[in-house]
Amino acid sequence: MHQLVLLRHGESEWNKLNLFTGWYDCDLTDAGRAEAAAAGPMLTDAGLEPDVVHTSLQLRAIRTANLALESMGRLWVPVRRSWRLNERHYGDLTGRNKKETVDKYGEEQVLVWRRSYDTPPPAIAADNGFNPNDDARYADLPPELVPTAECLADVVDRMLPYWYDSIVPDLAAGHTVLVAAHGNSLRALVKHLLDISDADITELNIPTGVPLALELDASFRPADDIPLEQRYLMDADAVKAKADAVARQATGG
Amino acid sequence: MHQLVLLRHGESEWNKLNLFTGWYDCDLTDAGRAEAAAAGPMLTDAGLEPDVVHTSLQLRAIRTANLALESMGRLWVPVRRSWRLNERHYGDLTGRNKKETVDKYGEEQVLVWRRSYDTPPPAIAADNGFNPNDDARYADLPPELVPTAECLADVVDRMLPYWYDSIVPDLAAGHTVLVAAHGNSLRALVKHLLDISDADITELNIPTGVPLALELDASFRPADDIPLEQRYLMDADAVKAKADAVARQATGG
Repeated sequence: MHQLVLLRHGESEWNKLNLFTGWYDCDLTDAGRAEAAAAGPMLTDAGLEPDVVHTSLQLRAIRTANLALESMGRLWVPVRRSWRLNERHYGDLTGRNKKETVDKYGEEQVLVWRRSYDTPPPAIAADNGFNPNDDARYADLPPELVPTAECLADVVDRMLPYWYDSIVPDLAAGHTVLVAAHGNSLRALVKHLLDISDADITELNIPTGVPLALELDASFRPADDIPLEQRYLMDADAVKAKADAVARQATGG
Repeated sequence: MHQLVLLRHGESEWNKLNLFTGWYDCDLTDAGRAEAAAAGPMLTDAGLEPDVVHTSLQLRAIRTANLALESMGRLWVPVRRSWRLNERHYGDLTGRNKKETVDKYGEEQVLVWRRSYDTPPPAIAADNGFNPNDDARYADLPPELVPTAECLADVVDRMLPYWYDSIVPDLAAGHTVLVAAHGNSLRALVKHLLDISDADITELNIPTGVPLALELDASFRPADDIPLEQRYLMDADAVKAKADAVARQATGG
């Protein structure tokens, strides 16, 4: 049996402002920091002490991991990071709120981008101030790997190689693995692990700051049939309230 | 040319209390956090932006690295950690202040432990409350690797394999490398790099929170003859005042 824990970052500054965030590198709010720090004791109580942590290259996920691990006295565990765990890149929507987006593209089109599995938003312009693609953290990537806009299907495609090549080997080595990442990169991983359909996955909302524990079998798939909503290390009603709050946000990410 | 930056952690809780610390895992003080955060802009101003960071397994070094990197917007760089960068293990002296130590062992003996290169203090007892050897972070080490007391010569011996096998390859790959560690593990590395004698190295005091920049040649030794005290990214008088403050501390570590 392999122990995997997924943790979506706590509330970010742009979650709070209800702006499409994606690859923009904003920090956590104070509430988000508190959520992250509270995740540590939930893991300790569940007997799930991470031996290794994987994060995206984005501050909000890195800080969430650090606060959670610090609160359980495990800031010393080995750390691995990859852009493949980054949030979905929202392209030209980055930095816009729902109203701006509807004003520019129309309600129907925005609904397609929110609900569709495989329709990416328009590419971000090279001179868009929210374009992070000249960021030093991506400087060593071949340019064709750096997205300018992604649908969820794109996130699945670029996330899965990291799952297979970096996370699975840590699980195979017997480590309890914590993955601190984002609404859509974790949604992509959950889609793979639970074999959720393209249609159903867009309805799944992962709440911020609540550890999601998965016991995996030798094929690195769930070892049991426990419904996803019962895998969170938090009371089911509280999880539902948090997930509904995410769903009410138009912007995701 | 290879760019290496050494950073001793900021003031710790036990530095402030003037207790032998060693492998006890105390946190930074507020002053220590401020020192750590101030190191980032010093690196940015010097054009030394780390591509990778190496830390010990101890909270005070990890937090120093995180605060320095965060203050320069580089919390995303790859992280590597090893017990081989830990502080010298002070054995039975751990958790004692100078007066207690002198009362128990005598002034002359304490002077030997402070000044000697190769005389370790007495081993820490298994039931000593400050013995961290049952800590989860060391659980995967073969027991013969976990020290019960170390002299500086012991630190050199256990640190060097990490220098050769983990840090040098990162330098060889062209990365600017930040090593966030401790008074004695960094002293051990500086001894190696500058070929300082056993007698002279015990007189060297590395100040807390001041980046020490070394440009290394193809043999991974300094590429120039700049004196050590001019390699700090801080005004020489300020460095001397900090180093003297360290020297006045009886307990080191």
